[in-house]
Amino acid sequence: MTTSSPNFPTEEYNFRVTRTRRAMEKKGIDLLVVSDPSNMAWLSGYDGWSFYTHQAVLIGPEGEPVWWGRAMDALGALRTVTMADENVVGYDDTYVQNPEKHPMETLATLIKERGWGALRIGVELDNYYYSAAAHLTLVAGLPDARLCDATGLVNWQRAVKSDVEVTYMRRAARIVEQMHLKIVDRAEPGMRVNDLVADIYHTGITGADGYWGDYPAIVPITPTGLDATAPHLTWDDRPFRKNESSFFEIAGVHRRYHCPQSRTLFLGRPPQKYLDAEKAVLEAIDAGLEQAKPGNRCEDIANAFNAALNKRGFQKDSRCGYSIGLSYPPDWGERTMSFRRGDMTELRPNMTFHFMPALWLDDGGLEITEPILITETGVECFCETPRRLFVKE
Amino acid sequence: MTTSSPNFPTEEYNFRVTRTRRAMEKKGIDLLVVSDPSNMAWLSGYDGWSFYTHQAVLIGPEGEPVWWGRAMDALGALRTVTMADENVVGYDDTYVQNPEKHPMETLATLIKERGWGALRIGVELDNYYYSAAAHLTLVAGLPDARLCDATGLVNWQRAVKSDVEVTYMRRAARIVEQMHLKIVDRAEPGMRVNDLVADIYHTGITGADGYWGDYPAIVPITPTGLDATAPHLTWDDRPFRKNESSFFEIAGVHRRYHCPQSRTLFLGRPPQKYLDAEKAVLEAIDAGLEQAKPGNRCEDIANAFNAALNKRGFQKDSRCGYSIGLSYPPDWGERTMSFRRGDMTELRPNMTFHFMPALWLDDGGLEITEPILITETGVECFCETPRRLFVKE
Repeated sequence: MTTSSPNFPTEEYNFRVTRTRRAMEKKGIDLLVVSDPSNMAWLSGYDGWSFYTHQAVLIGPEGEPVWWGRAMDALGALRTVTMADENVVGYDDTYVQNPEKHPMETLATLIKERGWGALRIGVELDNYYYSAAAHLTLVAGLPDARLCDATGLVNWQRAVKSDVEVTYMRRAARIVEQMHLKIVDRAEPGMRVNDLVADIYHTGITGADGYWGDYPAIVPITPTGLDATAPHLTWDDRPFRKNESSFFEIAGVHRRYHCPQSRTLFLGRPPQKYLDAEKAVLEAIDAGLEQAKPGNRCEDIANAFNAALNKRGFQKDSRCGYSIGLSYPPDWGERTMSFRRGDMTELRPNMTFHFMPALWLDDGGLEITEPILITETGVECFCETPRRLFVKE
Repeated sequence: MTTSSPNFPTEEYNFRVTRTRRAMEKKGIDLLVVSDPSNMAWLSGYDGWSFYTHQAVLIGPEGEPVWWGRAMDALGALRTVTMADENVVGYDDTYVQNPEKHPMETLATLIKERGWGALRIGVELDNYYYSAAAHLTLVAGLPDARLCDATGLVNWQRAVKSDVEVTYMRRAARIVEQMHLKIVDRAEPGMRVNDLVADIYHTGITGADGYWGDYPAIVPITPTGLDATAPHLTWDDRPFRKNESSFFEIAGVHRRYHCPQSRTLFLGRPPQKYLDAEKAVLEAIDAGLEQAKPGNRCEDIANAFNAALNKRGFQKDSRCGYSIGLSYPPDWGERTMSFRRGDMTELRPNMTFHFMPALWLDDGGLEITEPILITETGVECFCETPRRLFVKE
């Protein structure tokens, strides 16, 4: 293999493919069809905004991965992937968004041409970019194959990060720190929310410490006032107002590696219930972080967090964290581990999470969150952003 | 219905639902499960970055639409949709990204509870947000229903824009004009590409003419030098260089309505082949625009464009345009009409397209594109951005 990816040495890609093949063998999978753009990038180096048309990376029983996608995007693949040119295969543009035919017909043909048509084939059944029509077309085109569900198989191989990956996340951490500094510096009553979002983007993409910023897999979530009672509303031009809270769920990103972090800003003097909620959340974060160490389980963090929160009279029904790393829209989570009761995954060094203990109150939200790295002995918070409710009176 | 959506009068939503029901009847569909976030927004007003978990809008045989999604996002739905509270239904957070169970189980239950379990149900089989697993789970949960493919059914209802929609696109046009002005003003040899992207975002989200900028469904595509031989690579920190071209495929966005437009910038004196390509593309655009009028077909524009281009010795294998309007990531196209041979869709007033005659040469790309509105008598270009190769010597 020769690499043209600027992001990792070839050996790291080789190791990833090897690790993935080992997981395939355990599940009896001979050929893996990888549609998740994050998984495609992690395995092959491919990096382009082309996931709105059908594409995949194939991991066969041996040899290099194969990139398959729209012919015009094969040009971008040739410029970013580790594989030789003959393992980059484009399909004709007439297949794009054409109800008369489906791109997966050409993938079925490719699989048969490579001699893989009668294998046991894993597909990512619950991925955004593997639609029901894609699956039905592939099944119809491969009558001799046995298709099975491999959702999350590659995602799980990504759980423990390499040192280079951690380095990229540390750079992303510097970026999100700067973004929060910018927010506290600029936000004030009367400012249009979109004008602050413009500044957030500018800071995020300029980067920090000399490291450039990449696009986040989720846009800045910046609701203010009553909109902050809901978690995922985006901005418009209504202004920040005195005596209201706003939360900022944002991520620094470097080379597609994410370091998300949220903070909440109160413009004015926060009422006692915000201070109570802040106190409860901070105590609960401490309790959770104490459980964040190798050998413990994901649920240990959630249980400790929830117990501490409940003691202060607050409650959170949703998970309070998830695995993070390399991501493409629409989600910066890895969709494997969650901090919630029943997730028995063992924590291991170099796993990375967004510890995300958000509360949505009846008149606003409180998000104070920490991206974390499991170390050999415990946990490290990626960011040095002050852990508190930000207040500008 | 009472509306809490700030974007359109309630009557417009009612009209959209009525128009959609008429299309359902024609196809014998009693209940439509709408997973495409753009279609969900168009029908119900829902606007949030929550499409990374399973969600849908249901259009039953009568009554209001029903919003269904993650419980925490029901809070955002209550703040944005036209429907009464009882028609916003959330599912438990333990269903989120949990391999043990699938959110679609709760949708099947909801459909049966509403008495729709034995109907003919349309689903958007080839949508990003309707995964193979979602479909298989829904099919298993609705043994008495007959599911059929309704991909594109709502998208087609969106093809002819209302006057309010056109107004939003005009505002987006002002925004993208400002973005291109900023690019020409700021780009220079030695500037890191990400620093220019930061400025592009800042301008796009600040907005123009007093109208705020929303996030684009595709990030700015800004390849430079040899990377511009490929269509969809995103930025890093390598600098712009003298005697290289860069293209900028960007969109102004207002209230989720997109006005995409691309331009190409050459830093230095462009070689003759760029000037030749520019001349060919400009002539071909004129030829295409002449065919852009009510009563003509989509393919008429493509055929005229290609004939003019070929006469100058250039060739383009991919489609040269597509329908645009309301969009969420990962695509700002409507995924209905394309400007290509064989697309016999009749052009009608208030249809809107991105006429997208991009060429990718062996050492760079040339994108000079026009967002257009079909009028009663012909065509209007949304933008006044000068139509030429931008050159900074």
